[in-house]
Amino acid sequence: MGSTWGNKLKISIFGESHGEAIGVVIDGLPAGEVIDTNEILLQMSRRSPGSDSTSTPRKESDEPKIVSGILNGKTTGAPLCAFIENTNTRSNDYSELSVTPRPGHADYTGQIRYNGSNDLRGGGHFSGRLTAPLVFAGAVCRQILERKGILIGAHIFSIANVFDIPFDAANISKDLICSLSKSKFALIDAEKEDAIRTAVNAARAEDDSVGGIVECAAIGVPTGIGSPMFGGIENIISSIVFGIPAVKGIEFGNGFAAASLRGSENNDSFTYKNDKVVTETNNCGGILGGIS
Amino acid sequence: MGSTWGNKLKISIFGESHGEAIGVVIDGLPAGEVIDTNEILLQMSRRSPGSDSTSTPRKESDEPKIVSGILNGKTTGAPLCAFIENTNTRSNDYSELSVTPRPGHADYTGQIRYNGSNDLRGGGHFSGRLTAPLVFAGAVCRQILERKGILIGAHIFSIANVFDIPFDAANISKDLICSLSKSKFALIDAEKEDAIRTAVNAARAEDDSVGGIVECAAIGVPTGIGSPMFGGIENIISSIVFGIPAVKGIEFGNGFAAASLRGSENNDSFTYKNDKVVTETNNCGGILGGIS
Amino acid sequence: MGSTWGNKLKISIFGESHGEAIGVVIDGLPAGEVIDTNEILLQMSRRSPGSDSTSTPRKESDEPKIVSGILNGKTTGAPLCAFIENTNTRSNDYSELSVTPRPGHADYTGQIRYNGSNDLRGGGHFSGRLTAPLVFAGAVCRQILERKGILIGAHIFSIANVFDIPFDAANISKDLICSLSKSKFALIDAEKEDAIRTAVNAARAEDDSVGGIVECAAIGVPTGIGSPMFGGIENIISSIVFGIPAVKGIEFGNGFAAASLRGSENNDSFTYKNDKVVTETNNCGGILGGIS
Amino acid sequence: MGSTWGNKLKISIFGESHGEAIGVVIDGLPAGEVIDTNEILLQMSRRSPGSDSTSTPRKESDEPKIVSGILNGKTTGAPLCAFIENTNTRSNDYSELSVTPRPGHADYTGQIRYNGSNDLRGGGHFSGRLTAPLVFAGAVCRQILERKGILIGAHIFSIANVFDIPFDAANISKDLICSLSKSKFALIDAEKEDAIRTAVNAARAEDDSVGGIVECAAIGVPTGIGSPMFGGIENIISSIVFGIPAVKGIEFGNGFAAASLRGSENNDSFTYKNDKVVTETNNCGGILGGIS
Repeated sequence: MGSTWGNKLKISIFGESHGEAIGVVIDGLPAGEVIDTNEILLQMSRRSPGSDSTSTPRKESDEPKIVSGILNGKTTGAPLCAFIENTNTRSNDYSELSVTPRPGHADYTGQIRYNGSNDLRGGGHFSGRLTAPLVFAGAVCRQILERKGILIGAHIFSIANVFDIPFDAANISKDLICSLSKSKFALIDAEKEDAIRTAVNAARAEDDSVGGIVECAAIGVPTGIGSPMFGGIENIISSIVFGIPAVKGIEFGNGFAAASLRGSENNDSFTYKNDKVVTETNNCGGILGGIS
Repeated sequence: MGSTWGNKLKISIFGESHGEAIGVVIDGLPAGEVIDTNEILLQMSRRSPGSDSTSTPRKESDEPKIVSGILNGKTTGAPLCAFIENTNTRSNDYSELSVTPRPGHADYTGQIRYNGSNDLRGGGHFSGRLTAPLVFAGAVCRQILERKGILIGAHIFSIANVFDIPFDAANISKDLICSLSKSKFALIDAEKEDAIRTAVNAARAEDDSVGGIVECAAIGVPTGIGSPMFGGIENIISSIVFGIPAVKGIEFGNGFAAASLRGSENNDSFTYKNDKVVTETNNCGGILGGIS
Repeated sequence: MGSTWGNKLKISIFGESHGEAIGVVIDGLPAGEVIDTNEILLQMSRRSPGSDSTSTPRKESDEPKIVSGILNGKTTGAPLCAFIENTNTRSNDYSELSVTPRPGHADYTGQIRYNGSNDLRGGGHFSGRLTAPLVFAGAVCRQILERKGILIGAHIFSIANVFDIPFDAANISKDLICSLSKSKFALIDAEKEDAIRTAVNAARAEDDSVGGIVECAAIGVPTGIGSPMFGGIENIISSIVFGIPAVKGIEFGNGFAAASLRGSENNDSFTYKNDKVVTETNNCGGILGGIS
Repeated sequence: MGSTWGNKLKISIFGESHGEAIGVVIDGLPAGEVIDTNEILLQMSRRSPGSDSTSTPRKESDEPKIVSGILNGKTTGAPLCAFIENTNTRSNDYSELSVTPRPGHADYTGQIRYNGSNDLRGGGHFSGRLTAPLVFAGAVCRQILERKGILIGAHIFSIANVFDIPFDAANISKDLICSLSKSKFALIDAEKEDAIRTAVNAARAEDDSVGGIVECAAIGVPTGIGSPMFGGIENIISSIVFGIPAVKGIEFGNGFAAASLRGSENNDSFTYKNDKVVTETNNCGGILGGIS
């Protein structure tokens, strides 16, 4: 356990914030899948700091270099390795970390875990920068999933107590997911952008930071995906999502709110619609017993 | 992935609600550990339905039979297998499941996943009854952890909108954990018991059910446990916790509440106390970068 | 790592030679597969000591009791657990093991590994008896594979320097595999049986034992099974085969003999036969680059 | 399963023979370990073709570039990623592979496995060149093991029926292992070098190739390493060794030769020497029940 994850599809993340490069090896991709590099760059630019005025000012070009696993634009079936060089590594900024560990970061726990040998510059391997290879891996996988009709999108649920309109879980359109998937400031209610930027800038002006919640949806997922007990969709997703620094909670469907409801309110009744079994509500996040 | 979990310590859960037996194989236990059977029975009786007037009326004796891995009261290092016979299997009650899948259960998704071959009686392998071998495994492990000074306890955080007093995360006493660990109705504020029972019984009287939240704490955990990214404590714990039927959300420390706070409010500042690095608050659940 | 093996299909073996029972949990079986108990019993009786006059005299009935995962004769998709009670556990015979570890057994290494807490009676979890649950798992899997046209069989290649006729690797008939799969003394040249029994009995008369080699073949395996590097068929098979006590070597195709050959002699040339790519020889054991 | 291996220590190999680069991510290394780059280069030069007149004429500099996991010459505990650029990629030589797959290579099986999308140039990900990152990983690990007193060395057991003197398994000196570990043509009997070179060159003159056997020894391994059944040393080693192209067999200790011996000849009797349990012979390869 550590920076390697997965079973059928395995990802192995490497790199440190101020080292030479960061990257990922993806093992187990199906062969023959067309991978569009522009699509990858689009997703990576959505993450990349420096391109947005409100986000952290560190600028990184985040240009992934694919060194294996793709030939003539298609996956070969062999491991796909992508490299992202670190170009903006102002290590001097961090020279005092070994003296004063930052609260809310892994500086202190990392030093205990690695007997003082871990790379503290910029958080090292614990840096938020390590989400770049994760976004790369996601950008590859979403192209393959999209071809199977599975679309995944997310929006800002809340930042600094400014709340976007939540998904209507029983009725999420392909258009909405597609539009969110390309947005640089993903909101269902675009008018919330100003309030969010204002709140973030206000905190920054006071040398402070804000928190937020991301809401994610997947549509087109076939029924019957997942396995019982520890192989459930919730188990698998949470086992990777907590790999994103700062994530401290995850919920599916109604999540914690279900605890205040009665079964009759929270359960999604089955019914028939055009000869198919459907539910009219979606309080369970489309997952029952770990299975879609 | 499925009903087998773990890496250094592996557990493999088997059985169906109305089959002959359920159980667990635990592989990787350290050798030479004394295991007190009475302690196991105490923990299992806390789970076992039928012993409490407010819980589900299905009665199960839940007497585990250890068939391997323990000799003369101590672990041998070989896999420990425990069996729990199903004695109260009223399968007739479930004969209509294949016609009408229950909402909020895996009856329908399981049938799709297994092409109609899964055991539907009582939910089969998806039944809440399968938490009995999980409790058994926990009851074994907590004895070993306790010898290392690690104590784990949980209480009812809320049921049906009746809320117990939450843990004071920065200050949880050994006495409190020990007392909760033995309680049949684990509350910090015992006076909430009546209100909870009333709420549950009210729902039951209307053929309905209620939801709830469990709050869990571990004390005495050494610093430096966990690994980066996917090997973090949050990843590992959530990968097993969602194996408990009905769990739809998990959070660590302040969890979702942190999203409304500023960094200055949520971060736990480091300080020295008796020459040791400590934090005076505990908003991160004792975990930074996945590491304790 | 230990007594749990596998990825898509996971097996977890438990039990000790003189404990209450031994068994296996098989997780990941496809649902809806008919499992014939008589076929399982037939395979288990081939392993079971006591039924053959030349093998070890310990008698075990080896009747597996399936406690989960099968309903109405078909797999449910949930873990299949099988139990085999130990009925003939003459622990007194082994009371001196902790004083005098047997050479060629795990008595000594096991004691070091488990700080003296391992069950020494009859070799405990290291006993050859633990092959019974392995045979059970194989007997289940071979029924599923057979329905896909994959047949697996083995024969005595040699015992005590008496050699059977080896497989003609390029030409193994279904009839031969089927007949070997049912045989209690699997030989291609049945006339070798007497010589083998004589050699074994001669060694036994001198309180000694003999060695042997098993040759195994699988026919009907589709091309393209396996993965590169560590996911090759050879890697996967050897990772489980060395779980059988006393196995000290494994080879595929020509194996070690290939080391004395030139490439031109050892390589299997490709050609077309009825519009299909075939090889006329089979020196590679049907595996190139780990893939069938 | 595929190009990712391991549990506590995980390696993930990537790259194709004629792609941009090959390399490895090593996750799980202990932190604070000094890694000597010259030692790595020495081991890699032993593998690198082109430096020896008798080996394949393809020249590769094989200069690994460490991009993460090492800071100030010591492991940080984060994944170590090393890159090796491919500089000599004469892809034209292989342009006919998709028409005529080479016997004894994965050209054909790889195409079936990956539906014709795999990179055929130079064998792609199946190329013997992919052993370079394996050697890199080994060169890192052996430095850490050496500090614990564990030394590993190998020599040519035979090539083209020219046989070196085998190890005296019960008595392998540190000096011998150290000297073999540095040798460019590792032989115990240096006088066999001429005969081997002559045999290889003779085959090459006839556009043919030869086979061989490598014998490997590890000394200083503490007792009690390994786990029962599938966690045995033999299982673990063979699960990685078959990742080396062309390996078709593996044996431990006497291996297949044990099959011709009686128990009394093959078993290593235990005795006491200077108050320590020892064996005077070493027919089991130092492994009993999978444990050292």
